[in-house]
Amino acid sequence: MRSAVVVGTGLIGTSVALALSSQGVAVHLRDTDRAASLTAASLGAGTVEPPAEMADLAVLAVPPALVGSVLADVQTEGVARYYTDVASVKAGPQQDALALACDTVHYIGGHPLSGAERSGPLAARADLFEQHSWVLTPTADTDTDTLNAALELVSLCGAVPVLMGAAAHDRAVALVSHAPHVVASLVAMQLARAEERSVSLAGPGVRDLTRIAAADPVLWADILGANANAVADLLDELAADLDSAVTGLRAMAATDEAKRCSGARVVERLLRQGTSGRARISAKRGAQPVRYETVAVPISDRPGELARLFADAARAEVNVEDVRLEHSAAQPAGLAQLTVAQGSAAVLEESLRARGWSVR
Amino acid sequence: MRSAVVVGTGLIGTSVALALSSQGVAVHLRDTDRAASLTAASLGAGTVEPPAEMADLAVLAVPPALVGSVLADVQTEGVARYYTDVASVKAGPQQDALALACDTVHYIGGHPLSGAERSGPLAARADLFEQHSWVLTPTADTDTDTLNAALELVSLCGAVPVLMGAAAHDRAVALVSHAPHVVASLVAMQLARAEERSVSLAGPGVRDLTRIAAADPVLWADILGANANAVADLLDELAADLDSAVTGLRAMAATDEAKRCSGARVVERLLRQGTSGRARISAKRGAQPVRYETVAVPISDRPGELARLFADAARAEVNVEDVRLEHSAAQPAGLAQLTVAQGSAAVLEESLRARGWSVR
Repeated sequence: MRSAVVVGTGLIGTSVALALSSQGVAVHLRDTDRAASLTAASLGAGTVEPPAEMADLAVLAVPPALVGSVLADVQTEGVARYYTDVASVKAGPQQDALALACDTVHYIGGHPLSGAERSGPLAARADLFEQHSWVLTPTADTDTDTLNAALELVSLCGAVPVLMGAAAHDRAVALVSHAPHVVASLVAMQLARAEERSVSLAGPGVRDLTRIAAADPVLWADILGANANAVADLLDELAADLDSAVTGLRAMAATDEAKRCSGARVVERLLRQGTSGRARISAKRGAQPVRYETVAVPISDRPGELARLFADAARAEVNVEDVRLEHSAAQPAGLAQLTVAQGSAAVLEESLRARGWSVR
Repeated sequence: MRSAVVVGTGLIGTSVALALSSQGVAVHLRDTDRAASLTAASLGAGTVEPPAEMADLAVLAVPPALVGSVLADVQTEGVARYYTDVASVKAGPQQDALALACDTVHYIGGHPLSGAERSGPLAARADLFEQHSWVLTPTADTDTDTLNAALELVSLCGAVPVLMGAAAHDRAVALVSHAPHVVASLVAMQLARAEERSVSLAGPGVRDLTRIAAADPVLWADILGANANAVADLLDELAADLDSAVTGLRAMAATDEAKRCSGARVVERLLRQGTSGRARISAKRGAQPVRYETVAVPISDRPGELARLFADAARAEVNVEDVRLEHSAAQPAGLAQLTVAQGSAAVLEESLRARGWSVR
C-alpha cells in the first residue's frame, strides 16, 4: 500500500492516518470539518491535499449512520481501489451499502477495537491499535484483493485481524462494549443523584466500573442507536438477572431463617457466575502461557519470619508469582510454597540456602 | 496506644495489625483459624500470644454477622479498654451489640474503605488504608475516649476519619460499593454465558467494569446480606433506569423517524446524566487544585507542525496539561493553546522561542 485517503479525522481516523503515515504511506485527509483535517495534518497524519491519482485504499472513519452514503459518494468519485470503514457496528452500514447500490466487491467492513475517553484528532495516537483486535466482516461479495488490502491496513496499524460476520460482530460488541457502556452510565447516574457525603466515599472499584461513562454522550448515543436491538436484548437479559438479585437480597433481609438461607444461595450463585465470567477476560492479551515451578521453604514461628523470607527472595531477583502457606494447627512452624517461573527455582533455592534457609 | 488485640486475621485484620506493628504498637493476633493467625504472625503482624494485661484497643475484623457476638465475648473476657470493628456494614452490628447488651460506651463501629481482590492474610499490606476514608459511627452512648482511641487507630493506619451515622453509612456504601458490586457481577455473568469468539473481543472498558466481580463470592454474599435492603433499594432504582434505557433503545431501532428521534433523546439524556455522575468521582483523591497558564503559539499549515511543537515543548521539560487548537476554516494556519501549570509558561515560552517558534 502506497497511498490512502482517510475520510473523517476524529480520534480513530486521525490515529489510522498517523499509523499509516509513520509506515511511509502517503495519507490524504478529508473531513467536512476543515479545522479537524487541518489539525490532523498539523499532527503529521498526512496532507489535506486530495490525491493526484486513485489511492490504494480509502478508510471511512465517519459515524455508523453515514458509512453507506459516504461510501456511495467516494466510490462515485473513484478516490480509491479498495474501501473499508472503521465504524463500531457492522450490520447497518453493510445494509446501507447494499441499499445504496455501492460496489460491495471492493468494500469490506472493519472495526478496530480500541478507543480512548477523549475524542477528536488531538487525542489520536499512531499506536492506538497496537495489539488490539480489528474485526473485518467480509461477505460472499468481497473480493480477495479487497480483503488483502484491509489485512494490510490492519497489519500497518499493528493490530490483530479477526474475521466475523457482521451480525455476529454486532452481538459480540453489544456484549463486551455497548451494553456495559449503558450499565456503567446507569450506575454513574445513581452517583449523580446522591448526596455529596455518600459520593465522597467512592473508591477505585466504582471509579473503574464507571470509567467508560465519562465518554462523549452524543457519540455514544450514535453508537448505541446503530446497534440498538442487540444492546436492548442483552439489557433485557440483564434486567431479568437484576430481578433475581433483588429477590435474593430481599429474602436475605427476611426474619425467617430458611428464607434468608435461600436468598443467600441465590445471591452467592449470581456472584459465583460473575466470578467465572470475569475469569474469562482477566488474562492479559497476548500473554504467553507460563510454566511454573515451586520452591518449598519450612519456616519457624518467629514473628516476621515470612516477611524475612520475602525480603530474601527479593534479593535473589527472582519474581515470586504466588505464595501459599501451609500451617498445621498443631504446630506453629509452617511450609511456604513460593511459585516462580520455570527455570528460576534453582536460582532462588541457591540464594535462599546462602542466606540460611533450609529449602526442600 | 501501646497495645492492641486484633480479632480475625483475614485481609483487613492482618493489614490493621501490620500497620499498628509498624508504628510500634504491641499487637496480639487471634483467629478461630489458628493457621490464619500464625500466617499473620509470620508476616510480622504481631504475636499469637494473648496480652499479659488488658490491651488499649481491640479491633474486631470478623464478618458483619459475627461482630455483635464476638464483641460480647471479648468484652466479657475484658481484653481491652476500647473496642471497634472494621465490618463493611454498620447498622446490623450496632443493633446486635445493643441486643446482646454489650458495653456500647466503650465500643464504636468503624469501616475502613479499602480492600483488595484477594482475601486472606497473605494479601495484607501495612499501607492498605493509607489516604483512604475510614468511617466511624459514634452513637449518643459513645464515650469521647472511645472515639479518640478509634481516631488514633485510623491515624496510625494513615487513613482519613469520616464520622457518620450507621444507617447513613450503610446507604452510602450500598451506593458506592455494594450495588456496583452486584452490577459488575451481573455484567460478568453475561460474559460467562457467551461464546468464546465474542468474549475474545473484550477490551479494557469491560475489564475495568467487571474487575470487582473477581472478588470472593462467599465473602461478598455475607457483605451484601448484611446490607441487603439498602442494596436492593438501589438496584430497584437501577432496574427502573434500565427499563427506560431499553425502551429508548427499542425506539431507536424503530422505522418511524419521530420515534427514533425520541428514543435517541432518552438514551442521550441517560448517558449525559451518567457523565455528570462520573465527573463527581473522577478527581484524584487528595489532589490539590492546580492553577494553569496558557501559552499561545501560531502554527503554519506544514504537515507535522503540531507534532514538532509537542516535541519542542517536551524538550523544555514542561508538562503540557491540555492542548486546544484554533483553526479558522478560511486559513490553514492555526493557533495552538498549550495549557501548563502556573509558573511554567515563562519557561516554555523562552524554550519555544529559542527553537524558532513565535509565541504570543
